[in-house]
Amino acid sequence: MKDCVRLRQGCGGKPTEKLIKEIFYKRFKNDILLQGFDSAFLGKEGQELAFTTDSFIIRPQFFPGGDIGKLAVYGTANDLSVCGAKPLYLSCAVIIEEGFPIESLESIVESMAAAAGELKLSIVTGDTKVVERGFADGIYINTSGIGRVMDNYRPKKIKAGDAVIATGGIGEHGAAIAALRYGIKSKSPLQSDCGAIFPIISELRDYFESIKLMKDPTRGGAATVLNEIAEYADLGIKVFEDKVPVKQEVKALCDMLGMDPMYLACEGRAILVAEESKALELLNRLKKLKGSSNAEIIGSFEDRYNKLVYMENSFGSSRIISALEGDLLPRIC
Amino acid sequence: MKDCVRLRQGCGGKPTEKLIKEIFYKRFKNDILLQGFDSAFLGKEGQELAFTTDSFIIRPQFFPGGDIGKLAVYGTANDLSVCGAKPLYLSCAVIIEEGFPIESLESIVESMAAAAGELKLSIVTGDTKVVERGFADGIYINTSGIGRVMDNYRPKKIKAGDAVIATGGIGEHGAAIAALRYGIKSKSPLQSDCGAIFPIISELRDYFESIKLMKDPTRGGAATVLNEIAEYADLGIKVFEDKVPVKQEVKALCDMLGMDPMYLACEGRAILVAEESKALELLNRLKKLKGSSNAEIIGSFEDRYNKLVYMENSFGSSRIISALEGDLLPRIC
Repeated sequence: MKDCVRLRQGCGGKPTEKLIKEIFYKRFKNDILLQGFDSAFLGKEGQELAFTTDSFIIRPQFFPGGDIGKLAVYGTANDLSVCGAKPLYLSCAVIIEEGFPIESLESIVESMAAAAGELKLSIVTGDTKVVERGFADGIYINTSGIGRVMDNYRPKKIKAGDAVIATGGIGEHGAAIAALRYGIKSKSPLQSDCGAIFPIISELRDYFESIKLMKDPTRGGAATVLNEIAEYADLGIKVFEDKVPVKQEVKALCDMLGMDPMYLACEGRAILVAEESKALELLNRLKKLKGSSNAEIIGSFEDRYNKLVYMENSFGSSRIISALEGDLLPRIC
Repeated sequence: MKDCVRLRQGCGGKPTEKLIKEIFYKRFKNDILLQGFDSAFLGKEGQELAFTTDSFIIRPQFFPGGDIGKLAVYGTANDLSVCGAKPLYLSCAVIIEEGFPIESLESIVESMAAAAGELKLSIVTGDTKVVERGFADGIYINTSGIGRVMDNYRPKKIKAGDAVIATGGIGEHGAAIAALRYGIKSKSPLQSDCGAIFPIISELRDYFESIKLMKDPTRGGAATVLNEIAEYADLGIKVFEDKVPVKQEVKALCDMLGMDPMYLACEGRAILVAEESKALELLNRLKKLKGSSNAEIIGSFEDRYNKLVYMENSFGSSRIISALEGDLLPRIC
C-alpha cells in the first residue's frame, strides 16, 4: 500500500513535526523557516517584522467562549505575540462548503471583526473560495499575519535553572471542545480560553531581556510545547505538577474521559521561559495583569534530563511527559 | 429555507464580488482592504510592503503545465507582482485529507520549492492540518505573500484613451483544466500558462509612471478582470476582439464545449492599463521579453460606455462582455 497522510499526523505533536520536517523543511529550507518559531522573523535590523500563518478547521465552529472566527484572529495574533511582535495586519482566506448558512458566515465574520478591533489590527487582504458539498466541513479559515517586533525581541539561549511560566489555566480550549464533541453537559459549561495574549505580552516589555522564549500551547497542548522548548534548549525540564494551573472543571472532565490536561489545547495562554533571577518578579507582574492572574512558575530547566520533560508531584514521584504521539481529539483548532 | 452559500458564489465573478462585499468588506472595513487591489499596500512611505493571500482548491491537482504547488507559489507571487511588488516571503498552509498519498504531497512540495527558487523568494512560515477522509479533496493550499513595492508603484487614475494590454494568450489555464476535467484528448495536450509574471513586470520598471493598473485575470477570466478595471476607472472599455491573443487550441476547445475564452482563467498573464501615449512603446518592450512575445493592445477606455465592457470585431459588430455570473468550471485554481 502506498504511504499516505494519516489523521494522527495532524495532531500537532511528534507525528506532525515529523511530517513537517520530512516533507516541508527539507524542501523549503532557508534560515528563516528553520528558526522554527511561531512566527518567522523577517530582516535583521531596523523595522523588524514577524510573519505567520495558521489554518483553522475546528469542529464544531461555534463553542462556549468563541467560534472559528475569533479563534482565527486570536490564534494568528497569538503566534505573532509570542514572538514579541505587535500584530498589525491580517489576511483572511476562507474555503466555504456549498450550503453553509449565510447567517453562520456573517456571525463568524463579525467575530473576526470584533477580535481584530480589540487588537486594533486590520484585516487588509482576503480570498474567498467555495467548494462543492462534501469537500470541506462548513468553513475553513486561514489567517496569515504581519507584526512589528517590539524592542528587537529575540528568543535567547536557555540555561539550567531558568524558569517555565504558564500565564494561566491550561487545557481549557481542548476541554470545552471535548465536552461539546462528546455531548457532556455540566451546570456551567466549560469555556474555551480563546483570547488574545498580546495585551499581556505588551505589558512585559520591561522584562524582554529576561524572557528567553515564548510559545503558545495550542494543538498538542502544554506537553507538546514543553517538549519543543526542551529540544530548543537542549536541556531537560522538571514540571511541578502541583503548580500547573488547571481549573477544577477541566480536571473533572479529564478524569471522566481519561484525558490528560497537559495534552489539551489552550488558545489564550503562553508558556514563557524566564531567567532564573527574574522569574519571581515576572510572575508577580503577570499576576497583577488582567488575563494572567492565575499564572504560575510550573517548572525549571535541568542539566541532567537530556531534553526530556519530567513531571514531579508533591509525593516526589515523577513521570516522563512526551510530546503528543497520536490524536486525542482531532480538529481542535 | 435559510440563505446558504452557493457554489456559484465561488466563480470569481459578480456573485463572488457580492459575497465578499456584503459579508467581509462590510465588517472588516479599513482603508487598506477597501483599496481592493490584488495585494494590500501597507504603509505610506519608506520601505513599502504589499501583502496578499490566496487559497488553492484546484481539481485535479496535477495538470499539463503544472500542479497545485506551482500554482500556489506563482498565484500569490503574481498577486504581489501586479501591485508592482517584488515577492520576498511566502507562507504555506496546507489542509490535507487523510489518505492523501505522501508521494503526491512530496511532488507538490517539490514544485513549490522549485517555483520559489526560480523567483528567489523564501517560504518562511507554514501550517499543516489534516482532516478526516471526506472533509477536503486531497489537498488545499493557502499561500500568503509579502513583497516590496518597487519604485513606490501605485495604481493611478485612468483616462479615456488609455490602452488595455494583455501580456499573452488568454484562457490557457482554464482550457487545460477543462480539457482534463471533460476527458478531451488532443495530439498536443493544452498546457496551462501557470507561471510567474514577476520577471516580465520587473522589466517594465522604466514604464511604471505610465502603467496605471495591473491585474492578473485568474478565476472569472479576462472578462471579469476587465469589468473590475472598468469599475475602478469609472469608464467603459472597448475590446478589439481580433486583437485578443487566443491560441488556436484554446479556441477549438471553446468551440467544442461552448465556452468563451474571455471567461477562462489565466495563471501567468497580466492585464495592464497604459497611458495612451506610451502604450505602443510598452507593447514593443513586452514583445521582446521572454513570456510576453504574444502581448497585444486589446482595448481602450471610452467615455461613452458607462463602465461597460464592449467587444467589437472586425465586422464592426459589438457585444457586452459582463463579469462572470455563474460557474463555468468550479475549482479552477
